[in-house]
Amino acid sequence: MDNNLLLEKLDSLSMEEKIGQLVQLTGDFFEGDMDTVVTGPLKKLGLNTGYNVYNTGSILNVTDPDKMIRLQTDYLEKSTHKIPLLFMADIIYGYRTIFPIPLAQACSWNYEQIERAASIAARECYDEGIHVTFSPMVDIVRDPRWGRVMESPGEDTLLAQKYAESTVLGIQGGNLESAPGAIPAHKIAACVKHFAAYGAPVAGREYNAVDMSEHMLREYYLPGYNAAIAAGAKLVMTAFNTLNGVPATGNEWLNRDVLRREMNFDGVLISDYAAIEELIMHGYAENEAAAARLALLAGVDVDMKTAVYANQLAKVISGDEHMLGLLNEAVYRVLKLKNDLGLFEDPFRGLQETLQRQKSSVLSDEHKQNALSLAEESVVLLKNDNELLPFSKQAKVALIGPYAEENSTLGIWAIKGDEADTVNLKTGMLKYIDPDHLSVCRGAYMLPLDERQALGKYADKLPGETVAEEDLLHEALRNAGEVDVIVLALGESIYQSGEGGSRTNPTLPEPQLKLLHELSLLGKKLVVIVYSGRPLILTEVAGKADAIIQAWYPGTMGGEALANILYGKTNPSGKLAMTFPRSVGQIPVYYNELNTGRPNMPENGSYRFASRYIDEVNKPLYPFGYGKSYTSFEYSLLSVSRKEIKANEPIDICISVTNTGIYDGKETVQLYIRDKSASVARPVMVLKDFKKIFLRSDETETVQFTIRDEMLKFYGSRMEYKSEPGEFEVYIGASSQEILLSFSFVLLPEGEHE
Amino acid sequence: MDNNLLLEKLDSLSMEEKIGQLVQLTGDFFEGDMDTVVTGPLKKLGLNTGYNVYNTGSILNVTDPDKMIRLQTDYLEKSTHKIPLLFMADIIYGYRTIFPIPLAQACSWNYEQIERAASIAARECYDEGIHVTFSPMVDIVRDPRWGRVMESPGEDTLLAQKYAESTVLGIQGGNLESAPGAIPAHKIAACVKHFAAYGAPVAGREYNAVDMSEHMLREYYLPGYNAAIAAGAKLVMTAFNTLNGVPATGNEWLNRDVLRREMNFDGVLISDYAAIEELIMHGYAENEAAAARLALLAGVDVDMKTAVYANQLAKVISGDEHMLGLLNEAVYRVLKLKNDLGLFEDPFRGLQETLQRQKSSVLSDEHKQNALSLAEESVVLLKNDNELLPFSKQAKVALIGPYAEENSTLGIWAIKGDEADTVNLKTGMLKYIDPDHLSVCRGAYMLPLDERQALGKYADKLPGETVAEEDLLHEALRNAGEVDVIVLALGESIYQSGEGGSRTNPTLPEPQLKLLHELSLLGKKLVVIVYSGRPLILTEVAGKADAIIQAWYPGTMGGEALANILYGKTNPSGKLAMTFPRSVGQIPVYYNELNTGRPNMPENGSYRFASRYIDEVNKPLYPFGYGKSYTSFEYSLLSVSRKEIKANEPIDICISVTNTGIYDGKETVQLYIRDKSASVARPVMVLKDFKKIFLRSDETETVQFTIRDEMLKFYGSRMEYKSEPGEFEVYIGASSQEILLSFSFVLLPEGEHE
Repeated sequence: MDNNLLLEKLDSLSMEEKIGQLVQLTGDFFEGDMDTVVTGPLKKLGLNTGYNVYNTGSILNVTDPDKMIRLQTDYLEKSTHKIPLLFMADIIYGYRTIFPIPLAQACSWNYEQIERAASIAARECYDEGIHVTFSPMVDIVRDPRWGRVMESPGEDTLLAQKYAESTVLGIQGGNLESAPGAIPAHKIAACVKHFAAYGAPVAGREYNAVDMSEHMLREYYLPGYNAAIAAGAKLVMTAFNTLNGVPATGNEWLNRDVLRREMNFDGVLISDYAAIEELIMHGYAENEAAAARLALLAGVDVDMKTAVYANQLAKVISGDEHMLGLLNEAVYRVLKLKNDLGLFEDPFRGLQETLQRQKSSVLSDEHKQNALSLAEESVVLLKNDNELLPFSKQAKVALIGPYAEENSTLGIWAIKGDEADTVNLKTGMLKYIDPDHLSVCRGAYMLPLDERQALGKYADKLPGETVAEEDLLHEALRNAGEVDVIVLALGESIYQSGEGGSRTNPTLPEPQLKLLHELSLLGKKLVVIVYSGRPLILTEVAGKADAIIQAWYPGTMGGEALANILYGKTNPSGKLAMTFPRSVGQIPVYYNELNTGRPNMPENGSYRFASRYIDEVNKPLYPFGYGKSYTSFEYSLLSVSRKEIKANEPIDICISVTNTGIYDGKETVQLYIRDKSASVARPVMVLKDFKKIFLRSDETETVQFTIRDEMLKFYGSRMEYKSEPGEFEVYIGASSQEILLSFSFVLLPEGEHE
Repeated sequence: MDNNLLLEKLDSLSMEEKIGQLVQLTGDFFEGDMDTVVTGPLKKLGLNTGYNVYNTGSILNVTDPDKMIRLQTDYLEKSTHKIPLLFMADIIYGYRTIFPIPLAQACSWNYEQIERAASIAARECYDEGIHVTFSPMVDIVRDPRWGRVMESPGEDTLLAQKYAESTVLGIQGGNLESAPGAIPAHKIAACVKHFAAYGAPVAGREYNAVDMSEHMLREYYLPGYNAAIAAGAKLVMTAFNTLNGVPATGNEWLNRDVLRREMNFDGVLISDYAAIEELIMHGYAENEAAAARLALLAGVDVDMKTAVYANQLAKVISGDEHMLGLLNEAVYRVLKLKNDLGLFEDPFRGLQETLQRQKSSVLSDEHKQNALSLAEESVVLLKNDNELLPFSKQAKVALIGPYAEENSTLGIWAIKGDEADTVNLKTGMLKYIDPDHLSVCRGAYMLPLDERQALGKYADKLPGETVAEEDLLHEALRNAGEVDVIVLALGESIYQSGEGGSRTNPTLPEPQLKLLHELSLLGKKLVVIVYSGRPLILTEVAGKADAIIQAWYPGTMGGEALANILYGKTNPSGKLAMTFPRSVGQIPVYYNELNTGRPNMPENGSYRFASRYIDEVNKPLYPFGYGKSYTSFEYSLLSVSRKEIKANEPIDICISVTNTGIYDGKETVQLYIRDKSASVARPVMVLKDFKKIFLRSDETETVQFTIRDEMLKFYGSRMEYKSEPGEFEVYIGASSQEILLSFSFVLLPEGEHE
């Protein structure tokens, strides 16, 4: 439909029909007869009984294709305006083929694979009728207490930008020259979230207030969202949190000035679940009418799952031309999205045909293969003393732990993922090892019973505990006694992370630590595999295990990926996208910190008046960018094109990287820059580029980087974005702490250019 | 000297003499011959060898009166300009008569006594020749990991304001109508610090970066400093930290726009120790010249203990009229301070006379009596199951623990305090108990040996450990076996808090927790007294002790104050000025938090999608405002003058409080307000007033409060300070969680006033 027709369509709508386009409800509002709906979901949500559900613009989390066809058909029949429904859903890291959780994906540093994963998720969504996915989430997180860190690309801004760009392109595809704005077949619309700074709640407590300087916001938190918008993301979702006292969902400055004007976002801004109504609970809106008014003023187009817009907007607008204008803009954006998706031409986007021809790509071998590859690259080898790994296939192994043959390892937000599809660790290992050489047992409860209970109804989804703890431990010790090596599969339960999964003490559960302790006393070789949705505190594990593999929640193919790594078919190459603290008391600890006026110099020993703790080192257990390989790499600096530059002059850097070990492997070469002095103090280092390369044993490759002015820019204290002349240091290395090459250069002041 | 003469004096100075006024050095620069100085301290500090120390404007931490007379005499003889030296020192909570640490003082909620304490400290300073004290520190702190919280008045803005005002009045006296600006005899100049927001370093790590919104800064952090300035504080000290990337010491916006223009501060702005030079380490100044320039531009008058101003200012200024103007302003402010102190008339401020006549009030009985009273009111009774306390004098008591007869309980910043003056716990208790009924032993090491070692040279000042740990424990268990009740005196070492005393795990040291555990198994009545410079994590203690007394570092008379409380001579009345978290993972936890959009409602049980942790409750162990008494109080609401007000209409509230117990006692009645809805979300409650009253057993008193418009004001999102119409709730109670009375009122919109 061309734009004029779209505008005509808009004009033709009644006030009720317009408002309906801004309302998002769940599927139950469209099932059964109207009486049931009115006394059921309508009443429960508090919708006016006069509300016509056939004005509703979009539907949340209906994912059954047959049902979608039924609902859309019924809707188009009963609606007065005949505008198709939009189906939106939470498909975050895979539809049915589940990829590793986003935090794990970010550890792959492989953005081609991440784009492919997003593309596959979108393809499966498309094949099953979903139009919009609420992905990517690009909230920067520095506090692992926050459960939803699992959906985040970690602590770094550059990685968030790359993740945003790759996933939006994967989900939506690039811009079509032939039909600008249109979303092609096999693609769906992406929704970047949560705008803004949802990942920085006070004390890591879910939904808690966020407070930060505008400088912090612009320098670290906003670029990720901006990258998604620049890549064409059709939607943005508001955040639940307040930002400096003003709820994001009612924040006019954030959504109109920053998002719409500065970032040029002209797509649909949707509230997070019930977030418009929650403006009242925040103490920001006095009542529902105020909430509706404030949200519309702030530019929020769609009200997800509350009665506020539906019940209040007509009254709020009544006769107010300005508000009416805002309403029309919002409705236009929703219609535009539907049009970009081609829904006016085909409300089903080919779904009927796909179903009839059984063309769905869901869980195809190709998709699973991609899930496997990404899982392999997301896993991080944290420790490997005496090159214990990889194993020989002949080794007798005791596989112990609650995650030894556990399928509940998809993470909490894989809403269409099926545990039955999951390749667990045992299954993966049996590809390599004779069943007679592998003994398997649980060894400990997944969770202590009180923590299990604290999870409420979610605990019912976890495997039951039917054997006494002592008996589990006893079996584990017996099994371990008879083998060469122990693989201990530990983890936090998937319900301990994700939304609403904040933990004050993010460690392994007590029964598992006890199991670890008992097994460590045997003096056997011990590999610990950690399943988790966040960086756990692994200090105790690091003291007891010979090797540690951070598995995260590795997705459908996780067990196979881990087995491939254990047995050396795959050389691990993941690098941490987020710092692992030594203790809860270090939180937040992150690599790109400021130097302070009194940095803690190792040469000063325990000098009191330095920026340090008296009971703990400053350094984390495992730093950002860290991850081991089975092979080793040597770096040497070949050339730096210049060490004095004028503004906008690039610096070309060539380095040579050699695989000096016996295994082929991938290395992520990281380039950090430090601006030594500026009008706003700059971090001790900031990741500015990286290259992930594959090198066969003994192979050498030249890696090139180019430093451009953009990499030297930052926000000044008046929010001016600029670079400043002076000295810079460049650090190139294998992690933020393992710097192998460095040099400095000078950006000359303007006057000295001529 | 009148102002014209002062200006003439300023004009008469050479550039070197002017710059010298802005330099602060330690006493060693003025001792021995010039050769020794040049090759010694001068060289060490990096001062140009041509620097004439007899231009130096002020001296840091020389506190020996004879030496001060000698230095001042010598200086006036040798200086060309004959402007007397200023003597400044760190006298934070007492000169020789040491009061409880400021965090403890704030728990007294008795600002008359706090003013008296400051007045006594100033009097002792005056009598011993000090002109300026670097007090009060009014940095708000929400993170008990930060060691310097001991010098802070806690987490609340109102308490910080009260503390600021009381201490400045105590130190300086009020403004004299007869001689505006002059500081009277027996008073000295106060220096409020650390401007600004030093108490909010990332992760509680000393000197770490501070980042917060301008809203947070203005709403919570700045009012304390402002109150000190409004009370007349002659000096302000800059903070070590960056604020949103810009070091406070080089922050023009903070010091010129906010401090000088908005707060109308026209006194001396002094850097914290070496903070100007540290602008380089911060990555804010490229070199010393830039540091000097940036600090002067930012309005910093005095350079504490670096060579930067001395070496660089002349070059920085050379010929630049604007910079020369700034220099003159800075020098004028220093001269003005000297004049306000009367130094031009008497460079010794009566010190010679005081010494000759032996008039010094240091450690007088009156002073000690005041220290005792304030200590009694600062102590907080955290737990008292089954009314175990107070003791009868007949009870046989085992006094156990490293603090049983320990004098190192003055806190780290009592630089003139003498442990030999300290009344320790045992000495205090012997006033009440027959020595035959009191057995005393240490029971455990003060610190584990590795933590002791980590303190470096400070550990040498702690009592040595000469007995094996097992033997200490054995003696403790034997002693405990023979008594009715155990008093267990535990604590963190004074070197574990204070500047540079950040701890990731602020609990009691492990050996003491072990002692507690062993003693708790005996089934005896157990009172734990906690000495600390911060809220420690006391969850384990609370599970094992029948009674807990938070002693803080209670000052010279601490042992007597505690004994008076143990035996019921004094009924404890302290109320926490800072929240005690349950665990490190709750940090920061504070009472005046925002509600969030999804507050955790107790009635929802373990509902997942609320702002909560899955492994810990949201509530702290002991909340702000909390503290028990030996008696009980009943509150009833007598009258509220109106529940609908127009702008600026006050509400008068009368409540009646009755002491319903058998002990006389003091109660702090706290009034909190909640603004239910505003353009910036307001906290769930904010302390707005309180009254500390004394009631005999059975006595009833009427307590009056008045709610004024000022109490309803807050900073809007554009930093406009205002109240907004709408509904407010008033909570009156015994702590932030023990609300005993409440009502709501409405502030009418402007239009409805007529």
